[in-house]
Amino acid sequence: MRVTGLSVHDVRFPTSRELDGSDAMNPDPDYSAAYVVLHTDEGLEGHGFCFTIGRGNEICVAAIEALEPLVKDRDLDLGDLGEFGRRLTHDSQIRWLGPDKGVVHMAAGAMVNAAFDLAGTAEGVPVWRYLADLEPDQVVDLVDWRYLTDALGPAEARELLQAKAGGKAERIQTLQDEGFPAYTTTPGWLGYSDEKLVRLAREAKEQGFTQIKLKVGLDLEHDIRRMALAREAVGPETRIAIDANQRWDVAEAIDWVTALGPYDPYWIEEPTSPDDVLGHAAIRKAVSPIKVATGEHCANRVMFKQLLQAEAIDVLQLDACRVAGVTENIAILLLAAKFGVPVCPHAGGVGLCEVVQHLAMYDFVAVSGTMRDRTIEYVDHLHEHFADPVRIAGGRYLAPQAAGLSARMLPATLADYVYPNGPIWRTS
Amino acid sequence: MRVTGLSVHDVRFPTSRELDGSDAMNPDPDYSAAYVVLHTDEGLEGHGFCFTIGRGNEICVAAIEALEPLVKDRDLDLGDLGEFGRRLTHDSQIRWLGPDKGVVHMAAGAMVNAAFDLAGTAEGVPVWRYLADLEPDQVVDLVDWRYLTDALGPAEARELLQAKAGGKAERIQTLQDEGFPAYTTTPGWLGYSDEKLVRLAREAKEQGFTQIKLKVGLDLEHDIRRMALAREAVGPETRIAIDANQRWDVAEAIDWVTALGPYDPYWIEEPTSPDDVLGHAAIRKAVSPIKVATGEHCANRVMFKQLLQAEAIDVLQLDACRVAGVTENIAILLLAAKFGVPVCPHAGGVGLCEVVQHLAMYDFVAVSGTMRDRTIEYVDHLHEHFADPVRIAGGRYLAPQAAGLSARMLPATLADYVYPNGPIWRTS
Repeated sequence: MRVTGLSVHDVRFPTSRELDGSDAMNPDPDYSAAYVVLHTDEGLEGHGFCFTIGRGNEICVAAIEALEPLVKDRDLDLGDLGEFGRRLTHDSQIRWLGPDKGVVHMAAGAMVNAAFDLAGTAEGVPVWRYLADLEPDQVVDLVDWRYLTDALGPAEARELLQAKAGGKAERIQTLQDEGFPAYTTTPGWLGYSDEKLVRLAREAKEQGFTQIKLKVGLDLEHDIRRMALAREAVGPETRIAIDANQRWDVAEAIDWVTALGPYDPYWIEEPTSPDDVLGHAAIRKAVSPIKVATGEHCANRVMFKQLLQAEAIDVLQLDACRVAGVTENIAILLLAAKFGVPVCPHAGGVGLCEVVQHLAMYDFVAVSGTMRDRTIEYVDHLHEHFADPVRIAGGRYLAPQAAGLSARMLPATLADYVYPNGPIWRTS
Repeated sequence: MRVTGLSVHDVRFPTSRELDGSDAMNPDPDYSAAYVVLHTDEGLEGHGFCFTIGRGNEICVAAIEALEPLVKDRDLDLGDLGEFGRRLTHDSQIRWLGPDKGVVHMAAGAMVNAAFDLAGTAEGVPVWRYLADLEPDQVVDLVDWRYLTDALGPAEARELLQAKAGGKAERIQTLQDEGFPAYTTTPGWLGYSDEKLVRLAREAKEQGFTQIKLKVGLDLEHDIRRMALAREAVGPETRIAIDANQRWDVAEAIDWVTALGPYDPYWIEEPTSPDDVLGHAAIRKAVSPIKVATGEHCANRVMFKQLLQAEAIDVLQLDACRVAGVTENIAILLLAAKFGVPVCPHAGGVGLCEVVQHLAMYDFVAVSGTMRDRTIEYVDHLHEHFADPVRIAGGRYLAPQAAGLSARMLPATLADYVYPNGPIWRTS
């Protein structure tokens, strides 16, 4: 198969108008996507995107366009997507702009995810199932092992995968029957009133969610009041995670989380800089048994490796669109399995729920082999823009059935929300 | 003063034609700059740039343009450049694309450096001197302390600076009289023949350099032969640093450096991923007394903080254009002083020597207070394109005398090397 061309779209949603998604660091996001479609000579398409929160989405568009010569008019070997991923992250001149981080890495991720969308589409299966059907050797070949071998190498990864080969069919059936646990961040945005928080928290519990999440970190008294209200609304059994979105220094994080301790937070998410491995380790030691979670802004597999080596996290929150796509996320799932740390993916934004569910479900079927302490973030925004939106029932993600990575936006959305000239933006 | 507008230039030099700058990870760089000029209502200009190695330079141009609304038609308070720096790195929507790393961070660095070029120009002094004349309180206010306080806070930084206030005038005189030590990478590019290596190594010693550097990491037998030739050419007294440009995994780095040990390498630079703090710490422990150096690809102050906290490096190689400019580099100089690690800046490329000399000289005058084990990288490429090029004599950088940050390219260069339509590129 040959890639004959790419189309790239700057798609933005004016979410800041309702304060959806507001937190201590991001007061007014406009959820956006630098969206790419790979076109092939066989008529198949692959769709993928970078997720951003508004301004600067055009920089990701420029980065995808800079990667185009590595892809266009070249063969796409669906049997060797590891090579495709490495091609996109190893170009020496573009690598200088990272390496393996920021805009160029997110752009590589959009491309790699598009290639997996294409691979699933070509096989007629959802990507979680496409991955689950690969042999351990094939999975190991997808990974860029550079910089990982002091923690995990290909031979040990193969053993990890082989050890889970046995119960695969049964786990696939479990997933089809029961779905995968979700938690909801919908009640907890910082811009919401107390009344809205309480109402949404109660609704979440009624819908079957066993965990909700609250944004914290702007004002301690405010957080104590909201945490007390939320705990009262959902009772002692429902887990309440809290999320500071990188707001604190190390000592501040420890003091703040300790002050919220009486309300039994389940985990503290992004207490400080996503780059601060040693800082997270210090916080974790100090706030235990409250768990420490991070990952949505973790730049790459090398940073995740260190978070695990330093015993800095209890919960690993991979993101579908921050690192270089499915291939790098498989490396991260394997690392998490090696270190015995549960993966609870970051989602929300636009399209992150759609894509990341495939990774969590693949993890259950073939890597960790368990749903214990695993849960995928869920936010009920913008799903109506996707051809194969997530389906939630009883507080669980139902396994996607359509072929591909669930990454495809509706044609009308691509037309209406294109920035700055789409009708949604012209009238605003 | 008010910023009335920006001009942004995509400037590229076809350096790959001669294999200048070739190393184990970067076989064919075209040294480039995403170059920005701040124009003000007082007629003064500030010049700064991102340094890249070719493809993708246009992404940095896009990132500078994305930052333009934060700067254009707004006041520029030369008395509060700390606020200017924080404004450029704290925009919540653009911050999502890092945070504090990659393309958006480099673009912020170009802007901040341009503002310091303007500040020096306004005062009629070179920036190293401009900084040296600030009071400790003013320096502390330049720094974004977020995420640093577990290692170093403003009060302790003030004390560090006050402790060095005494000998400043004397050190300024020393610098004016003697310059600052340099080492040269000119002999050691991987694409050069053995004959060229030996000839350039001898010439470097004759010119007064006491340290040279060799690129390594592609082929061990090749490296052993080149290292033996270089050691024979310069004798036992001249330091030979080696630089792997991130080529190895941790175990491979240890084996390779150990194999080169008989030729007495002074430091091993970038043995592995620039993100791998724990990996560098493991390598350092294993190869001691050979020193470990890194920093040119270190994304930000939080990563440098951890390299120091983990005792992962013997030599800190800050870069003028990787982090968010002079303000973040001051934070890094203060951290290095706190941990007692010498700063030997990365340079070369295009314009890095010109800019970074100001930081090393400021460090000597006001922060570390010493030149002991300090040296600035020097490569003799592309200086002819600058209005105030570095001056080297007897293996030392002479202190710049012209006002500003020495960042200004000649107007003819901006015209001739603009990509893709400048005459240099049209005829190639």
